[in-house]
Amino acid sequence: MTPRARQAIECAEVIVGYDTYLDLIKELLTGKTTIGTGMMQEIDRCQAAVEQAMNGRKVAVISSGDPGVYGMAGLVLELVAKYPASVQPEVAVVPGISAVGAAAAILGAPLMHDFAVISLSDLLTPWEVIRKRVEMAAAGDFVIAIYNPKSIRRTSQIETVREIALQHRNPGTPVGIVHHATRDKENMIISTLDKFTNEHIDMFSLVIIGNSQTYVADGKMVTPRGYRL
Amino acid sequence: MTPRARQAIECAEVIVGYDTYLDLIKELLTGKTTIGTGMMQEIDRCQAAVEQAMNGRKVAVISSGDPGVYGMAGLVLELVAKYPASVQPEVAVVPGISAVGAAAAILGAPLMHDFAVISLSDLLTPWEVIRKRVEMAAAGDFVIAIYNPKSIRRTSQIETVREIALQHRNPGTPVGIVHHATRDKENMIISTLDKFTNEHIDMFSLVIIGNSQTYVADGKMVTPRGYRL
Repeated sequence: MTPRARQAIECAEVIVGYDTYLDLIKELLTGKTTIGTGMMQEIDRCQAAVEQAMNGRKVAVISSGDPGVYGMAGLVLELVAKYPASVQPEVAVVPGISAVGAAAAILGAPLMHDFAVISLSDLLTPWEVIRKRVEMAAAGDFVIAIYNPKSIRRTSQIETVREIALQHRNPGTPVGIVHHATRDKENMIISTLDKFTNEHIDMFSLVIIGNSQTYVADGKMVTPRGYRL
Repeated sequence: MTPRARQAIECAEVIVGYDTYLDLIKELLTGKTTIGTGMMQEIDRCQAAVEQAMNGRKVAVISSGDPGVYGMAGLVLELVAKYPASVQPEVAVVPGISAVGAAAAILGAPLMHDFAVISLSDLLTPWEVIRKRVEMAAAGDFVIAIYNPKSIRRTSQIETVREIALQHRNPGTPVGIVHHATRDKENMIISTLDKFTNEHIDMFSLVIIGNSQTYVADGKMVTPRGYRL
């Protein structure tokens, strides 16, 4: 957590977030109002935050990772924009360490070159849109970072990603899988494109598929920038 | 700067980095050895860092933004890997707030959906590779974040990006331009795909081109995640 994020939380009177994230910062919550709900109720939670702010209270909506990457920043701004400008509360987005940035650091240096970030969650996005993006990212030789690679209900998409990527890259292309980045249960494994879906992957995993130049050296995944060494 | 990054610098005996970045943290440098050089000498600088570490000293190589995104993390790991495992120093990558994350927060919430990050610098990458990636990212309806959009020497590439994107997106697609994110001279402008190259763009700019759904509300650039509000 950056000092700026901590300060925003310390200055707020109302803290809004998923219960698990509130629990991670419970030492900062003394004397504050908290609004926590379950994972599937993002809209209600952010609407409550906006209403509190319109009532004149200082509100912090917290996220894990970067609230600006698949996070709550957009939803808050979308809800605020529904009100007339004259009554809208001021909103500031405080950037954080993104899950993809945290995972990359644990794996080594896979993001030294152009990369695409794709969520496989089809709750809010048609699968055909996601599939097209995977195809374009694979054809463009982007390093590909995958959020929400798999859930209990949704297991086939990551296999499709593997098949599409294999049409463009070598079977031995390094693939990194990171779980619970920066948390107590953090762990990582570096596999290969042909075999990585045999590893444990779930909704807490972040998957990074190397580009055509990515290699593994001494257990670290490195995408060379192109320096002649 | 995260507490973890600050701690890494405080614990190090030798700090290595571009002079401008050393100057930004000069209050942390008291009593430490510093190795600073000009922007074009990354290899020598990182090699010096590796040699200091092999001599048993604790070394921190500093970057702006995230050292894991087009940063020094990869170069350090590549240089370390040239030595036998028995003499290699231990390397930890400490993630930071990436330039794209900082810029996105200033613009609003443009990265709420899948995005591609592309550097237009052709110093180390053939232009045809970069151009192909721009085409794939545009065709895949990715939000497109552009590092190194323009320099004094290199001015035509951002015009080509505009032309390619216009083949796939409406002329009114929002485009955000951020300069000097999180620094004193920070500023941003939100333009449109047909006109954004008329704005001032230089090597300190980060450009974010919206996807087909991105809109501007109350001066903020928002890519909707897809919630029904």
